[in-house]
Amino acid sequence: MAYEGKPNRVVIALGGNALGDTPEEQIARVREAAPTLLKVIEQGNEIIITHGNGPQVGMIQKAFTFANQTDGAIPTMDLPECGAMSQGYIGYHLQQAIGAAMHKAYKRWHVASVVTQIEVDPDDPAFQNPTKPIGAFLTKEQADAEKAAHPEMEFVEDSGRGYRRVVASPEPKKIVEYESVLNLLDNEFIVIACGGGGIPVVRDYNDKGAYKGVAAVIDKDMGGELLAEDCHADTLVLLTAVDHVAINFGKPNQEDLTDISVEEAKKYVEEGQFGKGSMEPKVRAGIKFAESRPGRVCIIGSLEKAAEAIAGLSGTRIHA
Amino acid sequence: MAYEGKPNRVVIALGGNALGDTPEEQIARVREAAPTLLKVIEQGNEIIITHGNGPQVGMIQKAFTFANQTDGAIPTMDLPECGAMSQGYIGYHLQQAIGAAMHKAYKRWHVASVVTQIEVDPDDPAFQNPTKPIGAFLTKEQADAEKAAHPEMEFVEDSGRGYRRVVASPEPKKIVEYESVLNLLDNEFIVIACGGGGIPVVRDYNDKGAYKGVAAVIDKDMGGELLAEDCHADTLVLLTAVDHVAINFGKPNQEDLTDISVEEAKKYVEEGQFGKGSMEPKVRAGIKFAESRPGRVCIIGSLEKAAEAIAGLSGTRIHA
Repeated sequence: MAYEGKPNRVVIALGGNALGDTPEEQIARVREAAPTLLKVIEQGNEIIITHGNGPQVGMIQKAFTFANQTDGAIPTMDLPECGAMSQGYIGYHLQQAIGAAMHKAYKRWHVASVVTQIEVDPDDPAFQNPTKPIGAFLTKEQADAEKAAHPEMEFVEDSGRGYRRVVASPEPKKIVEYESVLNLLDNEFIVIACGGGGIPVVRDYNDKGAYKGVAAVIDKDMGGELLAEDCHADTLVLLTAVDHVAINFGKPNQEDLTDISVEEAKKYVEEGQFGKGSMEPKVRAGIKFAESRPGRVCIIGSLEKAAEAIAGLSGTRIHA
Repeated sequence: MAYEGKPNRVVIALGGNALGDTPEEQIARVREAAPTLLKVIEQGNEIIITHGNGPQVGMIQKAFTFANQTDGAIPTMDLPECGAMSQGYIGYHLQQAIGAAMHKAYKRWHVASVVTQIEVDPDDPAFQNPTKPIGAFLTKEQADAEKAAHPEMEFVEDSGRGYRRVVASPEPKKIVEYESVLNLLDNEFIVIACGGGGIPVVRDYNDKGAYKGVAAVIDKDMGGELLAEDCHADTLVLLTAVDHVAINFGKPNQEDLTDISVEEAKKYVEEGQFGKGSMEPKVRAGIKFAESRPGRVCIIGSLEKAAEAIAGLSGTRIHA
């Protein structure tokens, strides 16, 4: 709960799909987003920005796979490293765009992107049932060769278009670098963290418990939710392509939701009201956050109306 | 100058060549380096780590060039973005390795990698004479096609092996994110910053002075030097493959230097004692740092003996 004079701390999660497919598109998109983010700060909020990286991490991994086929001196790159690269790539454009918007508005706040690992449980049941397809489509021969070289990898046939590697999507347990984020926040920085849901790592008990990267994909909304919890945020804002969460989506009786309780949200999830890979994870992350501490609110809405949504004038609020 | 009780602030620059050519090699190398870095902290130093990225940024840029030739849906990636990716990639492994070493030593310091831009002057004369070859070797036809698509790019024939793009190596002027580094340092973090000499940016006066990336390569020793100045460091440690700077290198009268004044260093540079692309830039960075404030010292030595070098038992010290 925010008190008078205490800034409201807000985690804002941008979708990876909203960032475009090329560096030029990404620069344009983050520059469009930056003034909105500034508006949120001017409302009296501290902000932590996180972002998806699905298209970007896919692009990076494919680039190394294809390049390795052209020139064996270029290594293939596994998911944790691709995720780390995507954090640098997206963080750089975001901090530059926010810096540009501040420069034009004569603001002198500081922006920092921190490379963020996120701990997952090596015994998470998701590792027994990898379902997230990643990287390039392969022929059966290529998939078999990859499997022979990397027995730990799993490949599945994907809707007649070829074979793709699948990885687990485990539940995030801890933001490894949350102290970095907190420290910068407490000193009034705008922090960009936990891109792509964080670089997934597990403790390696054959190595005295040191962290090591693991090929997995963390749902960026669940990563953002944990970031918000670990960084003592008041509000979690999950941005998407629509202004509101809707029930009976696409039907004549479609209804945009503006304000729902955790109980209502759970009921709608049980009814299967939301897209499995799109809106449902957002609503689930919202339920988890709203239940994590009294007064916490999750808002799902569009980037364009993010400031309005935080002010209560747009978006769908999920609260206890 | 360090006072009793005040920790000595040290910028340590690791060479990009010391990081290997694949993710597996890089993990192994940074894990070898981490205990030495911890030893330096235990000596009572605050440390900022910076690193080269020549081989890594080359690998990333080549990967996107080759992938784009295989699948036009994958964009090519220009140098600033490749540099940003390399900061994520190397920063992730470094912070993980330092974390692992701390975990085993029961230390609970924090490590943070910050994505770092570095401002250069668009009127730097280096932009009139680009000399640094980067990326893949191209045929004449490929180079001509690239030039047609990107008229601002320059290509040169490289020792009979094909054509390569050349970019400028301008002088770094300002660490854009130095406040992030300082803030984390003041709160006792180990900070990883300014990888690859920083992502080069210029102020775009057609865009109200906002920063934008520029295709250039900043010498990582000069970037480390500026980082050390901007972050109020006492000591700049430039690590390389040898324990000492030598004069008459490779001759019967070769002499390892342990302690030289700025005047001696300048004299040796004038005599052409040092390799143009290897030791000379380090000595030049050392001279600049030692001259920047009374009491500042630059040490050039090997990673293996970094702690000994800081304690005055190895390496070459350059001082006013």
